[in-house]
Amino acid sequence: MSEIDNEQMNKIVALCKRRGIIFQSSEIYGGINGFWDYGPYGAPLRRAVEQLWWKYMVEQRDNVVGLDSTIICHPMVWKASGHLDQFSDLMTDCMDCKRRYRVDQMDDPTTCPNCGSKRLTEPREFNLMMKTFVGPVFDEEHVAWLRAETCQPIFVDFNTIRVATRQKLPFGIAQTGKAFRNEINPRNFTFRSREFMQMEMEFFCHEDESLKWFDYWKDQAWNFYTKILGIPEEKLHIYWHEKLAHYAKQALDIEFLFPFGWGEIQGVHHRGQWDMSRHCEFSKQEQDCKYFDQDRKESYFPTVVESSSGLDRICLMLLCNAYDEDTAATQKEGKDEDVRIVMHLPARVAPVQVAILPLSKKLEEPAEKLYHSVLKKFRAEYDDTGSIGKRYRRQDEIGTPFCVTFDFDTLNDNAVTVRDRDSMTQERIAIDQLAKFLDDKINPEF
Amino acid sequence: MSEIDNEQMNKIVALCKRRGIIFQSSEIYGGINGFWDYGPYGAPLRRAVEQLWWKYMVEQRDNVVGLDSTIICHPMVWKASGHLDQFSDLMTDCMDCKRRYRVDQMDDPTTCPNCGSKRLTEPREFNLMMKTFVGPVFDEEHVAWLRAETCQPIFVDFNTIRVATRQKLPFGIAQTGKAFRNEINPRNFTFRSREFMQMEMEFFCHEDESLKWFDYWKDQAWNFYTKILGIPEEKLHIYWHEKLAHYAKQALDIEFLFPFGWGEIQGVHHRGQWDMSRHCEFSKQEQDCKYFDQDRKESYFPTVVESSSGLDRICLMLLCNAYDEDTAATQKEGKDEDVRIVMHLPARVAPVQVAILPLSKKLEEPAEKLYHSVLKKFRAEYDDTGSIGKRYRRQDEIGTPFCVTFDFDTLNDNAVTVRDRDSMTQERIAIDQLAKFLDDKINPEF
Repeated sequence: MSEIDNEQMNKIVALCKRRGIIFQSSEIYGGINGFWDYGPYGAPLRRAVEQLWWKYMVEQRDNVVGLDSTIICHPMVWKASGHLDQFSDLMTDCMDCKRRYRVDQMDDPTTCPNCGSKRLTEPREFNLMMKTFVGPVFDEEHVAWLRAETCQPIFVDFNTIRVATRQKLPFGIAQTGKAFRNEINPRNFTFRSREFMQMEMEFFCHEDESLKWFDYWKDQAWNFYTKILGIPEEKLHIYWHEKLAHYAKQALDIEFLFPFGWGEIQGVHHRGQWDMSRHCEFSKQEQDCKYFDQDRKESYFPTVVESSSGLDRICLMLLCNAYDEDTAATQKEGKDEDVRIVMHLPARVAPVQVAILPLSKKLEEPAEKLYHSVLKKFRAEYDDTGSIGKRYRRQDEIGTPFCVTFDFDTLNDNAVTVRDRDSMTQERIAIDQLAKFLDDKINPEF
Repeated sequence: MSEIDNEQMNKIVALCKRRGIIFQSSEIYGGINGFWDYGPYGAPLRRAVEQLWWKYMVEQRDNVVGLDSTIICHPMVWKASGHLDQFSDLMTDCMDCKRRYRVDQMDDPTTCPNCGSKRLTEPREFNLMMKTFVGPVFDEEHVAWLRAETCQPIFVDFNTIRVATRQKLPFGIAQTGKAFRNEINPRNFTFRSREFMQMEMEFFCHEDESLKWFDYWKDQAWNFYTKILGIPEEKLHIYWHEKLAHYAKQALDIEFLFPFGWGEIQGVHHRGQWDMSRHCEFSKQEQDCKYFDQDRKESYFPTVVESSSGLDRICLMLLCNAYDEDTAATQKEGKDEDVRIVMHLPARVAPVQVAILPLSKKLEEPAEKLYHSVLKKFRAEYDDTGSIGKRYRRQDEIGTPFCVTFDFDTLNDNAVTVRDRDSMTQERIAIDQLAKFLDDKINPEF
């Protein structure tokens, strides 16, 4: 995968900054590499995608339950998971200019790319977990780690959750939340960052049924991206891992064609009994790590099938897929700019779903009344400044699917004009039908 | 405020563990002090309260916009905010047994409470921020901090957000998310923990209008707790700060009467021009910290009025307020247990809003069909095990407001019996009216 160097990506990054979708953290202090803030038009998008996933994966299923664990957990969790010993990159230091490099990213691992020195240290492992200290002393005894993935606490809490919910195998536990990785070289906008949101579901089952469930969760993930988020199938592909971990029977990534190349947005992994047996070995709490199967009359470590996705990557995919420069628009609407920049975001997750645009400031009072009623059900914005063409363009740029114009006729016929972002067609709708009209288009059942 | 030592609090903590609402992080490894996980019946509660707050404070207002910033930001943010220099407790070490204490919590600050030694170090400041390292080297140059409050990134991003949203003063920026404090002595269940969720809104206005807005946001907060979350007014009070920071004109806490005493759930603080002028001083980016007011024809630092609440504390308040041992229940329903343990949670935020209970396993097929249709709109659970009385009790304990029993008559009259958690009254409702019946009770407009 190449660096961000193409025009398309630069335009998306610039639009995200200009319109307050996503921008660098701490910009007034020069920024901090690998950390991104979601602004007024980005936070609603990320929230909506997360809530949609939660509804799809947890709330609408009777065999998946939710968890929200802490980011900092007991350090033994990361010893058992193998992260403390193995989650690392091979690094080398230049003894002359003191710079540090990832060996796998150097063209010539014997020469410093900065000063040309040949005096490089022997490659050493650099752990990607972020370290902190809990308690009153900053010493090794008080070290803790920011979680590098959201799934480990799921394994640790498995039995408490199983007992509390009276679930039998097979069933899943899902959680969403922040994870942290001290990436040496954050890149490609939000694609590889140091603080990011994961959405993971670990499905616990008997080994005999695990490949069936692997297929099932693969299909469920594919359905989420293609049917629910509307990503075209030709922009997605499945990469099957050829080299598997010793405990795994299958593993795949779902990749999206970003402007910088194919990039992983989701993994589906068969994890075997690795996680539960490791936590058993390190915690010595066998009763919390095994499951007694009343039908099979045996006790065993559950086999885990994991569905793991990156929320920030899914948002970036949605933005990249949505971005469009519509040069034919002028002919249709004949407005100010030559090129219409439009984000074809799914209505369900668009940061603004409905814009209320009065054709005259004299219509302010009834138009604001309509706005406040629309606000109860949808993410809505009111805009009365500039020509109607300028206002359409502003909404197009942030992906608002429906612009509702309130005109002088509205006072007589109690109807408004609804303009569709994608087709630019307009339709006259009675105000008392508006909520249903919008709801059918914005929140179709799935 | 005293320690958790009363029976009521112990019962709530035990119920939270037993029913998978909230329990200690990393329990199989002995737990980690000050960190709590929200399980299948806790995560939905916390999510619902956060989403309700976001709707109330952001989505339903045209003068507040949302942000979702990173937890780790540029270290200068915390230098400017004063946290690096002043966010600390005075600590002393015992030179004999090596234990460390907060001076303000010692009965006698000259004697070690553990070993009785008189050889204590001079008190020293201990910073409450959690330290980490970003980048390839763990040295002082790469130190960063986990945010101790969610509001500082709001100040730092103020101008980027103002420009992108074309907002004029007065307007607010809100965000919710994790914050971290290295509390020496975490206590009172989730009330004082080391990792917690904040919900903050910073309102930017002209100094002349700031006291008016202070009153406004005080009333809005009070409304949220009393009207929307249904907390009785007599269990809340306002504590007005007598000693104010030099820049502040007013400050208050809203406190709730927990089983362990009055405890703060929300602050409303007049912060003057402190934050914006400090970030100006440290960033030297005056254009990002000041506002040019076109009506007044002047440039000034916005004055900030803050509405700051603790999501975990609000959830704990809801749980404590909801907990009830209903000894009169046996007379009404005549069921198995003597005492009915019931959580009177508001229907809007209850982890399960509707339970579908078939009276016989023979009704499984049509009852599950009803369950799957209810699941589209509400957080729902299906339970067909045990007597109907046992199932009511199970749902009462997690605060499910409506139990829908599906009986043999349902097959003929297409109606179900809806049992109200609080009154225990039952009502026969036609299935085609059920969604509207429930929606009116669960999601009243506000």
